[in-house]
Amino acid sequence: MPEQPANPQPVPDHDSMLSRKFGREVANYFSGSPLNRVGFLRGDNKFLTLALHHPSTQFLLCKDLQPLVSPTQKGKLHYLKYADVKPVIGENPYATTETEMIGMYNSNTYVPQMIFLGIDEKAKEGVEYENKKNIYRGAPYFAVDVTPKGGVKEACEELIKTVTDKGIEFSKGRVMDLTSAQAAIYAEARQLLDWNARNPFCAACGQPTLSVNAGFKRTCPPRDLARTASKTSTDENERPPCVTRKGISNLCFPRTDPTVIMAIVNHAGDKILLGRQSRWPPHWYSTLAGFAEPAESIEEAVRREVYEEAGVHVGRVVIHSTQPWPYPANLMIGAVGQSIPGDGEKIDLGNDPELDDARWFDFDEVREALKVGTSGLGEDAGPGYKEGGLRLPPTTAIANQLMTSVVNGFVSGGMEKL
Amino acid sequence: MPEQPANPQPVPDHDSMLSRKFGREVANYFSGSPLNRVGFLRGDNKFLTLALHHPSTQFLLCKDLQPLVSPTQKGKLHYLKYADVKPVIGENPYATTETEMIGMYNSNTYVPQMIFLGIDEKAKEGVEYENKKNIYRGAPYFAVDVTPKGGVKEACEELIKTVTDKGIEFSKGRVMDLTSAQAAIYAEARQLLDWNARNPFCAACGQPTLSVNAGFKRTCPPRDLARTASKTSTDENERPPCVTRKGISNLCFPRTDPTVIMAIVNHAGDKILLGRQSRWPPHWYSTLAGFAEPAESIEEAVRREVYEEAGVHVGRVVIHSTQPWPYPANLMIGAVGQSIPGDGEKIDLGNDPELDDARWFDFDEVREALKVGTSGLGEDAGPGYKEGGLRLPPTTAIANQLMTSVVNGFVSGGMEKL
Repeated sequence: MPEQPANPQPVPDHDSMLSRKFGREVANYFSGSPLNRVGFLRGDNKFLTLALHHPSTQFLLCKDLQPLVSPTQKGKLHYLKYADVKPVIGENPYATTETEMIGMYNSNTYVPQMIFLGIDEKAKEGVEYENKKNIYRGAPYFAVDVTPKGGVKEACEELIKTVTDKGIEFSKGRVMDLTSAQAAIYAEARQLLDWNARNPFCAACGQPTLSVNAGFKRTCPPRDLARTASKTSTDENERPPCVTRKGISNLCFPRTDPTVIMAIVNHAGDKILLGRQSRWPPHWYSTLAGFAEPAESIEEAVRREVYEEAGVHVGRVVIHSTQPWPYPANLMIGAVGQSIPGDGEKIDLGNDPELDDARWFDFDEVREALKVGTSGLGEDAGPGYKEGGLRLPPTTAIANQLMTSVVNGFVSGGMEKL
Repeated sequence: MPEQPANPQPVPDHDSMLSRKFGREVANYFSGSPLNRVGFLRGDNKFLTLALHHPSTQFLLCKDLQPLVSPTQKGKLHYLKYADVKPVIGENPYATTETEMIGMYNSNTYVPQMIFLGIDEKAKEGVEYENKKNIYRGAPYFAVDVTPKGGVKEACEELIKTVTDKGIEFSKGRVMDLTSAQAAIYAEARQLLDWNARNPFCAACGQPTLSVNAGFKRTCPPRDLARTASKTSTDENERPPCVTRKGISNLCFPRTDPTVIMAIVNHAGDKILLGRQSRWPPHWYSTLAGFAEPAESIEEAVRREVYEEAGVHVGRVVIHSTQPWPYPANLMIGAVGQSIPGDGEKIDLGNDPELDDARWFDFDEVREALKVGTSGLGEDAGPGYKEGGLRLPPTTAIANQLMTSVVNGFVSGGMEKL
């Protein structure tokens, strides 16, 4: 069996009434970041300038959203230093305030996307920054998009060549073999870089937008120096009005799509509903899942999706845990639900033909498959797996964590078993 | 005290192991829709045509996102019939398939936005439609934007005059006094109408987009008949390429912003952390809340927000229930967390100055305020309220439900008390 990343670690929480009653928290893969995002400092260009130039600072390079990975340390990302990335990002992209940046906006200038990810407060060395009586200490982390483009195309190509000549490569495909902490750092970098890349224009007015707030906001500037030479301009650089410039608009902020994923248990409490898509390998099943729709609760979304995909009617729904999923911007909200007895448990794939099959599986069969039948989608099952047996997703998937909780007594067992 | 809507009703779930263990489900205001959205029929223009013209069909009119409300039945929306809205929407906006609509796209034509909300399967009369062996029966519901605009400006104005002349008015301000079922229908209508109105342009390429899939999708058409006369057009109606036309892009689908809201209990289990904003009335507090950020779990978002806003460090987090909140597109994910003893419980407002104050309140004080101190934000507290006492949000707010659960034993009590 291909080596899987360590089980997602429970949060190192203190003993508390909540953890005694509900069990320890399940921390799913891509969560558990070691960074304090200090989001309130993203608009402070003095802080960003200090962070950018500090010797402790780590730069994660991404090319087409793929990160540099360590050639020697398994499961680790490879970080560079300021001197390495300077030819791409320039002396200091944070030299001006946000207001100044907006005033100097020129849509013809390509600026490589950077994200300030946060500070590692446990690092031995780091910046020390005072803000409103509080002092923040830690090693700063940035992500930099080095996909060769625009005016920095050659600088990116040169940097990529220097790095790959040393045997340091960008990962390929889905990055699922990092340690928990590194996976969480990459997830933040990937989701923000991708959001910026997907949204170069304002959805409210169609004009190009500018990345601000250290990569966490896109704004629609009222002027654009690129218009000076344009014949469509009426008043030098002024652009047509845009509603997003008044008050606060969600269009300016990163998008995250809430998704439901659910282990549905039958009313008798001994079977679990799993489904499969036709593109999956034979015998491979997982919990049902789908996007939450506008204006429904998560509990309703669980019931709707299970009805649409499998025809099964669900009663009580309990939310189990959540998982960030940066492909591209999902928030997986994991739930356990129990079906309504009788006709409500009859499987019907005829409403929405998304699934190739859906079936009720005995807990025992799922328990066995969790031991011997898990792997990544493109990988072989473990050595104990017997051909024809049930195959399931690996521990990095919240589906696996939900099934594990259910067969270990989430529905009927003691609270300590959650 | 102004009359409050009925307490959100628990889901009418069957007795199940899950509900015995975790208690009945809390259904928050704006959830609990009586409609089956039958989302898999949104792309079927034969079904939509049938639904549009059926005598059982209900049309909810919105002007600037405000719905028509019943002048006689408190808490009810007022619906119109096809004949009423025909002058605005035309004979049949679903006469063509999605492919045909995209082929005929003309960005100069204003089409009043419509949303297919679903079918009420419990209505006495309704459509009957067969799709892939399954039969769907129910009274269809549509939302129609009648804000006077474009080529239908006059038709909208006339319809509005006819209706208001009868004493039927559009609501004003936040609509918080509908019954649970009506509130859920309105939430769906509002969030979808608003999303379409906010996103007339493609964020990937800046070109205008077209509403399809009965209001649940916006697509970036490859051609635009409005370009024929344009000098910028190179090949008749063809538009520049757009990445959203290849595969599936989340930009084409409605956006929902996940938000965390949390009742934080101290380690000893007898106090709850509440905060207030400066714009609120004196003595008014609520649970802390904030947007989830990209690539963090809900549990992490809870810990981050509480740290940022109040300086308190939280350990175990348990998700309690969720609430759709259509102002404009939030999904409130309600959680209970417990703080880490010692310095972790010290309040510090100095990180992110969002709150005017944050304090630990004894359960007893909160319990009393839940009895006598709740109301809508602009309203007076109840008759039992004594000046200077704690004031809290009404039962329609998930904050109220979280606090109620906590003082009734969510953290330490028996499961039946949840």
